Amino acid sequence: MSFDPAQLTYTSDGLIPAIAQDRESGEVLMMAWMNQEAVKRTLETGRVTYWSRSRQSFWVKGESSGHVQKLVDFRVDCDRDCLLVLVDQTGPACHTNRRSCFYTAVRDGKEIELMKPMDD
Amino acid sequence: MSFDPAQLTYTSDGLIPAIAQDRESGEVLMMAWMNQEAVKRTLETGRVTYWSRSRQSFWVKGESSGHVQKLVDFRVDCDRDCLLVLVDQTGPACHTNRRSCFYTAVRDGKEIELMKPMDD
Repeated sequence: MSFDPAQLTYTSDGLIPAIAQDRESGEVLMMAWMNQEAVKRTLETGRVTYWSRSRQSFWVKGESSGHVQKLVDFRVDCDRDCLLVLVDQTGPACHTNRRSCFYTAVRDGKEIELMKPMDD
Repeated sequence: MSFDPAQLTYTSDGLIPAIAQDRESGEVLMMAWMNQEAVKRTLETGRVTYWSRSRQSFWVKGESSGHVQKLVDFRVDCDRDCLLVLVDQTGPACHTNRRSCFYTAVRDGKEIELMKPMDD
């Protein structure tokens, strides 16, 4: 079956959540949002492209930081309302310079920092 | 630092996306939503509990199907607006009886089914 970005289920804002996973380590790196055009660009260019809700603009991951995400595989979930992109991640995925955005664990009611910012 | 479920960033509907990952295989199983009380119940009970938007009720994963998610680790992202739960998943996570909801890949413009429903 042909894939059509218009046939995904978007929020009332026209967005769909996209989870980025490191294809090598399996680590979940981040979650951000795409709109229909970002889905199209990601597939066409092989460079993961989100929609920045705060800046209201396309966000080619790593365009300014160099921390690019090369698309390895693009997955759609059963409800067609969430995406999973397997990526080759250059450097940190998180804007705090950590490999993953999910660096805080909650254990016994306390927040624990699991990883430190990477060296540049 | 103490963790307070009220100190997460929820959508205007009071929800936060939660990604479930198999702690053993690293496979991303599903994405669903929690509200503040579901976050609290998940941490207190160790049974992953979502908020069902369609049914407008709490959804203790596996309560009816037996396909429970035992919480192994609970993570918060840098923006505090997305959760990652590492789980021990019993059986399939997807309502289609597949291990993961992300069983469709998009390759060369076509949708490919990556996994079949599991045997009961």
